[in-house]
Amino acid sequence: MSSYEIAVLPGDGIGTEVMPEALRVLDAVRAEYGTEFRYRHFDWSCETYRETGRMMPADGIDRLRDHDSILLGAVGYPGVPDHVSLWGLLLPIRREFDQYVNLRPVRLLPGVTPPVRDKAPGDIDFWVVRENTEGEYSRLGGRQGEGTPAEMVLQTAVFTRHGTDRILRYAFEFAERIGKPHVTSGTKSNGIYHSMPYWDERFRAIAAEHPQVAVDQDHIDILCARFVMSPERFDVVVASNLFGDILSDLGPGVTGTIGVAPSGNINPERRFPSTFEPVHGSAPDIAGRGVANPIGQIWSAAMMLDHLGEQDAAADVVRAIESVLGAGAVRTPDLGGTASTADLGKAIAAEI
Amino acid sequence: MSSYEIAVLPGDGIGTEVMPEALRVLDAVRAEYGTEFRYRHFDWSCETYRETGRMMPADGIDRLRDHDSILLGAVGYPGVPDHVSLWGLLLPIRREFDQYVNLRPVRLLPGVTPPVRDKAPGDIDFWVVRENTEGEYSRLGGRQGEGTPAEMVLQTAVFTRHGTDRILRYAFEFAERIGKPHVTSGTKSNGIYHSMPYWDERFRAIAAEHPQVAVDQDHIDILCARFVMSPERFDVVVASNLFGDILSDLGPGVTGTIGVAPSGNINPERRFPSTFEPVHGSAPDIAGRGVANPIGQIWSAAMMLDHLGEQDAAADVVRAIESVLGAGAVRTPDLGGTASTADLGKAIAAEI
Ligand SMILES: CC(C)[C@H](C(=O)O)[C@@H](O)C(=O)O
Ligand SMILES: CC(C)[C@H](C(=O)O)[C@@H](O)C(=O)O
Repeated sequence: MSSYEIAVLPGDGIGTEVMPEALRVLDAVRAEYGTEFRYRHFDWSCETYRETGRMMPADGIDRLRDHDSILLGAVGYPGVPDHVSLWGLLLPIRREFDQYVNLRPVRLLPGVTPPVRDKAPGDIDFWVVRENTEGEYSRLGGRQGEGTPAEMVLQTAVFTRHGTDRILRYAFEFAERIGKPHVTSGTKSNGIYHSMPYWDERFRAIAAEHPQVAVDQDHIDILCARFVMSPERFDVVVASNLFGDILSDLGPGVTGTIGVAPSGNINPERRFPSTFEPVHGSAPDIAGRGVANPIGQIWSAAMMLDHLGEQDAAADVVRAIESVLGAGAVRTPDLGGTASTADLGKAIAAEI
Repeated sequence: MSSYEIAVLPGDGIGTEVMPEALRVLDAVRAEYGTEFRYRHFDWSCETYRETGRMMPADGIDRLRDHDSILLGAVGYPGVPDHVSLWGLLLPIRREFDQYVNLRPVRLLPGVTPPVRDKAPGDIDFWVVRENTEGEYSRLGGRQGEGTPAEMVLQTAVFTRHGTDRILRYAFEFAERIGKPHVTSGTKSNGIYHSMPYWDERFRAIAAEHPQVAVDQDHIDILCARFVMSPERFDVVVASNLFGDILSDLGPGVTGTIGVAPSGNINPERRFPSTFEPVHGSAPDIAGRGVANPIGQIWSAAMMLDHLGEQDAAADVVRAIESVLGAGAVRTPDLGGTASTADLGKAIAAEI
């Protein structure tokens, strides 16, 4: 019987409300599949920051290191600047644990009305594979001439061969593994002079290693437009840190699933724990009322199960989500219903 | 009677097919409003590049300088790498002529079926104001360790006080001028460490100079999603060069108008000529068949008229476009009809 050590970080806002529902569903998985989970809870958050001036303790990364996975809620709260909360917790975890893949499904779900017309479940079903450790998210740069008319800020993006090749390779291998051998690269080599032509060059090189996988590439501007105009054309979309960030919010925007989409921040070699978290943020506007939709957190737990090797349980959780959504009897307000966070969590747990 | 010197650069692909229709409509404007246009034609294009190794002659910029405006078709053709064709023509023109505003309407038009559901003309009607001379489109950077496993590329974005403040100010003044005093800033200060917090700081400073204008800001990832989920919330969206590029393709993607949207590359002080060009590219796949939709080029000519101070004529051209689209009798294949490029151009000219 497998047993896993899970670090649980609910974070801020609705993060603390949706996390218990994911644990409830994992309890159901334990009952059904006999998989053991041992949780350690961490209350690191913007509140910690307000009390201590740090988002996590100085040895925070070390305290997380010995876990099989990290399940994260959401980070960020009014009064703490985003770049403080994120560069103090989320982004160091991604980097220290070399979680170089950010993986997010874009899928039209039963029972969810998308903003685009004429699409049915099955029409839109693809994955965004985002580079998660380098690229445009960089601390290289700074300001000069502060406070003068000549003031300027430089911001340097970093694309290494190591970092670029491994994310591209992951995308090709992932596309083969899921039986959709077709990869689209997001680029902007017509405008961004150095990094994006390099990205294209490496895309061609890694594509040549995978001749059985069909390839496409689109500049990010038209690629975003195509996410709306023809989302059915995509299977696996690979992109840099920034472009992947944009695409993996836009995709769920198109399918109406921003409130329910999950994500994995994955270290594929499993040398370090991977982090699984919903795409949505801490949503201070609705926090504290018990009405947040817990599906993003629950689906993230399913992605975690898949990563841990528990494919059957993972598929079962996704099936339970789809079945409850499809039935439509239990819906939180964002889906047009009146159910609470806990009602929806219980309904899904009951389907396992 | 006003008279204007116009530099006409059809460029590549369908650029050469849609340009004559814009000139046809300007002829109708001349007949109706008595406005004189003197054209100088330039055949600079990817073909020029293949013959001469340059996209334009060494003194190209100087040859354009003495015009009141530049009307551009589309640049780019298979076989010439994008970053060559663009950094050899389009981008130098934007920069040398300090066309620091890239302005694009996002508007649901009659007779165009958008990919989003439940929206009618009037619901979506806003402008993207994009910084057009600095930011992420930069030649600063380079490669080291070429061909080794340590290979890496740096790409540096530049945000000056001068460049940031003037585009933000333009956005606020434009919002007031068009009677929609509400500006949304596209940012990513939670992930991009130096440049985007600076962008936010300057946005706050320039907003403080315009207390009568309402402000909003969204990170680019959720902003893109909101373009799809709730496009009616926007009036004027201001963004950096890259983010503005993405948003001003995505917007027309949402309204189904990529094939018909115009853009202005504007030097507001009129110290240099401004350039007006359709959002669409050279579309090599349909070039040479006389079926391209000329509305993007014609609408660009309308934006040019507006910039030149011919507001009545400009409004008349836009009205003619909407009237022909609304009537629906003359449609090119992209709009579901069988009309030719010239048919549609003639129909619009006849409405002036
Ligand atoms: C062709 C390309 C360099 C250009 C840009 O990104 O500026 C285009 O997408 C545009 O928006 O005019
Ligand atoms: C919060 C922010 C820094 C983060 C990102 O941009 O990576 C978020 O948008 C995400 O996608 O996980």
